[in-house]
Amino acid sequence: MNIILIRPHEIDRDRVVLEDHRAEHIVKVLRSDKGDRVNVGILDGKTGFATIEKIDRKRPFQVKLFLNIDQDPPAPPLTDVILALPRPIVFRRIIHQLTSLGVGQVFVINASRVEKSYWEASIVSDNGWREYVITGLEQAVDTRMVPITFHRGFKPFMLETVPELSNRYASMLVAHPGACTSISKIGIHKTRPVLVAIGPEGGWNDFELALMRSQGFVEFTIGARILKVETAAAAIHAQISLMREMS
Amino acid sequence: MNIILIRPHEIDRDRVVLEDHRAEHIVKVLRSDKGDRVNVGILDGKTGFATIEKIDRKRPFQVKLFLNIDQDPPAPPLTDVILALPRPIVFRRIIHQLTSLGVGQVFVINASRVEKSYWEASIVSDNGWREYVITGLEQAVDTRMVPITFHRGFKPFMLETVPELSNRYASMLVAHPGACTSISKIGIHKTRPVLVAIGPEGGWNDFELALMRSQGFVEFTIGARILKVETAAAAIHAQISLMREMS
Repeated sequence: MNIILIRPHEIDRDRVVLEDHRAEHIVKVLRSDKGDRVNVGILDGKTGFATIEKIDRKRPFQVKLFLNIDQDPPAPPLTDVILALPRPIVFRRIIHQLTSLGVGQVFVINASRVEKSYWEASIVSDNGWREYVITGLEQAVDTRMVPITFHRGFKPFMLETVPELSNRYASMLVAHPGACTSISKIGIHKTRPVLVAIGPEGGWNDFELALMRSQGFVEFTIGARILKVETAAAAIHAQISLMREMS
Repeated sequence: MNIILIRPHEIDRDRVVLEDHRAEHIVKVLRSDKGDRVNVGILDGKTGFATIEKIDRKRPFQVKLFLNIDQDPPAPPLTDVILALPRPIVFRRIIHQLTSLGVGQVFVINASRVEKSYWEASIVSDNGWREYVITGLEQAVDTRMVPITFHRGFKPFMLETVPELSNRYASMLVAHPGACTSISKIGIHKTRPVLVAIGPEGGWNDFELALMRSQGFVEFTIGARILKVETAAAAIHAQISLMREMS
């Protein structure tokens, strides 16, 4: 936790009292004292620091902070992701990872090789994904809640949602191990967002690839080695960021 | 498991009998039948296919294979990694990840921000790391056992081991979030290996950075966001691979 995130409704005249894992973090990991400063941010708002006004080191931990929040958070990331719904334990790690690397928005979709049971997991159905976005923001010192939306129909998403979205993007890409084109041959716009689709374990099937192609997605590969989705997601994000930087 | 890896000593006149998790994989995941072919490779050797001569679908599973091994494995990867020893659960994931992305050799070293207790973990002391290399190879369809060596003294490693190694490398890099230079400003040699040092959670300290600099390491950053080591490792590897491709 490299920043302590506070919800706007928790603030009372520039002060906030923490009694949960954030208080525990200040007491046990940071080992802070009264008068010390800690990094804080308002969820979906600015960042800054807070001064510890009161600290109770015994369980239940309690920390009272006085806030000094006047810095803009990092600019919204320029990479948006379409992700074929992974198995819940992998999905958690990917959310954390993409959020920490910086992602604008995530569209989670169905695909032929997505197991139906994944859609019943609490990370999807009970908004369980939110906590993994939060830990990703806490890791990377950001405040912007990443919107994650779920689209259970692959065809309606591609035929109805994508056409509405496509204006936003300088390019739309689909990662596919069988593709011939390396990301190095694809320009990434310096200042306009890119949308990249990352498939399920086992990849997209031919129908899915054909439909994405027909909607304007460009196939690319990051190499011949078969990777787990979570490894591929980090590698794809990193290569797109580098191409953007070099453009 | 995208390839079934066999140890040379298991082979008897082009045949091997599997009775462990590999047999279970063939029966339960691949759902193969007698006469079917499966992808196989010899650990530290060639790859090819095997024909199922006999299959026993009841526990304990047993599969008898006839081997047809005549393909060269992928060329040895050109990225070697120095890794400050992470916490065991993270170390596992990084070994799998780096092996699947492709790594020539890993030097695991100590650093000021490495917790001493990590050195007692079985993944270090009992060669527990080997099984995570194997799963990485099985993932990425490779056969080459990645050598991982452990160096508990930071200074002796940098002052004695590195000078002996440095001839092998076209460049030696150290990832450091505070550095000013992006990897995009650093050339990666097309055909000669690179050595990249990845620090502990919290980063290298000033002494460590200074010593590495004095030994010829060049600092670079992959961005301002603070990442978990496992996310950073995949991102760094991916960006180095892309720069090599573009050089």
